[in-house]
Amino acid sequence: MICLDCSREETGRDVMTCPACGGSFAFRYDLAGLRWDDTMPGIWRFRRLLPLPPGAEPVSLDEGGTPLLKSRLDLGIDLRWKDETRNPTGSHKDRQLAVAVTHARAIGARRSVVVSAGSTGLSNAAYAARAGLGSVTLMSSGTPAERILPLTAYGSRLIEVASDIDTIIAAARHLAGHGGTYVSSTTRSTNPYQAEGAKTVAFEIVGQLGEAPDWVVVPVGGGGTIGALWRGFVEMRDAGLATRLPRLAAVVPTAYDALGAAFAAGIDDRARFEALPYRDDVPTILTKLSHAHPPDGLEALEALRASDGTVVAVDDETAIEGSFRAGAADGLYLEPSSGVLVPAIERLTADGTIRPGATVVGLACGSGFRESFAILPRRPPSPERVALAALAAAVNGA
Amino acid sequence: MICLDCSREETGRDVMTCPACGGSFAFRYDLAGLRWDDTMPGIWRFRRLLPLPPGAEPVSLDEGGTPLLKSRLDLGIDLRWKDETRNPTGSHKDRQLAVAVTHARAIGARRSVVVSAGSTGLSNAAYAARAGLGSVTLMSSGTPAERILPLTAYGSRLIEVASDIDTIIAAARHLAGHGGTYVSSTTRSTNPYQAEGAKTVAFEIVGQLGEAPDWVVVPVGGGGTIGALWRGFVEMRDAGLATRLPRLAAVVPTAYDALGAAFAAGIDDRARFEALPYRDDVPTILTKLSHAHPPDGLEALEALRASDGTVVAVDDETAIEGSFRAGAADGLYLEPSSGVLVPAIERLTADGTIRPGATVVGLACGSGFRESFAILPRRPPSPERVALAALAAAVNGA
Repeated sequence: MICLDCSREETGRDVMTCPACGGSFAFRYDLAGLRWDDTMPGIWRFRRLLPLPPGAEPVSLDEGGTPLLKSRLDLGIDLRWKDETRNPTGSHKDRQLAVAVTHARAIGARRSVVVSAGSTGLSNAAYAARAGLGSVTLMSSGTPAERILPLTAYGSRLIEVASDIDTIIAAARHLAGHGGTYVSSTTRSTNPYQAEGAKTVAFEIVGQLGEAPDWVVVPVGGGGTIGALWRGFVEMRDAGLATRLPRLAAVVPTAYDALGAAFAAGIDDRARFEALPYRDDVPTILTKLSHAHPPDGLEALEALRASDGTVVAVDDETAIEGSFRAGAADGLYLEPSSGVLVPAIERLTADGTIRPGATVVGLACGSGFRESFAILPRRPPSPERVALAALAAAVNGA
Repeated sequence: MICLDCSREETGRDVMTCPACGGSFAFRYDLAGLRWDDTMPGIWRFRRLLPLPPGAEPVSLDEGGTPLLKSRLDLGIDLRWKDETRNPTGSHKDRQLAVAVTHARAIGARRSVVVSAGSTGLSNAAYAARAGLGSVTLMSSGTPAERILPLTAYGSRLIEVASDIDTIIAAARHLAGHGGTYVSSTTRSTNPYQAEGAKTVAFEIVGQLGEAPDWVVVPVGGGGTIGALWRGFVEMRDAGLATRLPRLAAVVPTAYDALGAAFAAGIDDRARFEALPYRDDVPTILTKLSHAHPPDGLEALEALRASDGTVVAVDDETAIEGSFRAGAADGLYLEPSSGVLVPAIERLTADGTIRPGATVVGLACGSGFRESFAILPRRPPSPERVALAALAAAVNGA
């Protein structure tokens, strides 16, 4: 384990943040003669590149091993969906929480805490239940009841903290290691273990295509997923399992485009990044992507620069339309925070950034079924009304 | 293809209902030297026991191949969940619609029609989209907008028919074969092809356990799934891939217990079954199971009798509690229509019907994420409210 900021090396099993500089940890692996364990399901095939104690029994709901579906959208490219909606709670976060909760149980934790009523909250609640650990979901006030309900179904303890979300996140870090509490939040500076779970998406894509694609397009919220994907592709190339690296495109909400601004301005330090004039309170349906200053944003920027990538901003309406276009073309119901992929890929194809015929993977992060309640007021359905006697003509034509 | 009622044999590729007697068709397969095609994913491994034209290209979203998860519920038995929530639209119906829509496209249909805004409706909309066919969802008035919304996301044409549901179902049958319309409704008498898709659950269970379990417990709505499961287990035994057959338990809503009444009274003919005094309009949250007279009920009864099985009735409140118990113990979020499994299995264990140590598979048919809106008014979440300064004590203990 090595600090990304000050290069300090660390071997403790329960250290989360660099004790020297407060920076985020990464892990180094021996890639020589790398082979997957094909007797294991999903992400556990890749255990050799996951930072878990050798004897730790996996906490698993059979996450990962998701399909790569060829899209029928007519964009002049070879577009595939990496369908992460097929994970146990409907998002790629299940990969990360499977690793975090496995680590938590291995080091003797009694409960797993996150600050999230979104995908991370669901994954944490489900995996903690699976592990026989307690789970705690911290949230700010005003979280919609529809989003909270599944957390109660997983038996999570729900705590609404009278403060803003950034302050709660900061406070949550300090809970770790006391009284059996483990903090599973999916920010690398809070928990570097979970961050390794997301790499497995890259391993699977290379396995499914037999090579890295030309482009991977990724909805970006906290920035950790795109950073992890990049490390995954680099590890595949370094291990000789891919001969090249993909270019990465990050998709963000129009109102939360700090990443795009920083990318354009060449910003690569935390102070200037945090000073960008974005706010956390602009309403958007793209709740999974609405970080004013993504906590793993610098890592995301590094991945974008290293991959000769780009950033695309998408608004709410176009995102919802994207969800519906993927649904109608491909039978895939994406939450709007993943529906952003359709207009983003279309734009990159139209302006020539993605060349005709290119192999493009869209990371379909989250299922629409968890977000129907939020889409409903924006797209109230209006069925046709037909009398019984007129049914045959209406369906089969005159 | 052979009629279950009058034994007429039929070879037409687009015949759905026995032209001689109006009965339901079954299929006969050559089981000698049966081997699965392990190069194919999910249900397509079992294609040799699916009634599809040899050259038909599968319409697939990578359905089936679902996990068999060991439960942590303390019931004194070896309980496993066959986790059908992991299918593309969140239920086992995806297996059936994959087969139906593959058949539809193979025989040149232009659109696939069902009468269902529930699991069947979602599967039909998704697979028709995947196949590049149109889809039509017929429904009666008063269907909740939350249930309709995902259907619009899949681009389905929604038609509300001014009539009761049984009349709409009867009318839908007559749409088939006209103007390119294919009817995919998951009732065997309407479409015997789809009914074969559900068998693949039995094949997978035998493969995962290496043998048939002692019991399979199944939520029953229309009755087709439990009938298909039974055929699947019989085929496994006849092919020599299992040495025995499981006992089957059907779980129904208390207010919709025609199956239990018929089972107890030894009813095995349609007239007496239809005469049982059950109604279609009793409100219940168990909407996936609320058939007054399940259309494939006689087949379900036959499977229950042949397997020395039983019927258990569960009420709404116990079902919701069952969903939450599975969530907290196993990290599995079931819709209440599958949450019924927990109290049902508990009751069968408590009264000695299921013996201690028995291997029991609960067919977890549908995901809770699609039904949160319906659970919400019955279980409004109430998070604890904690001040920031009190957070550490609240989470970690004093």
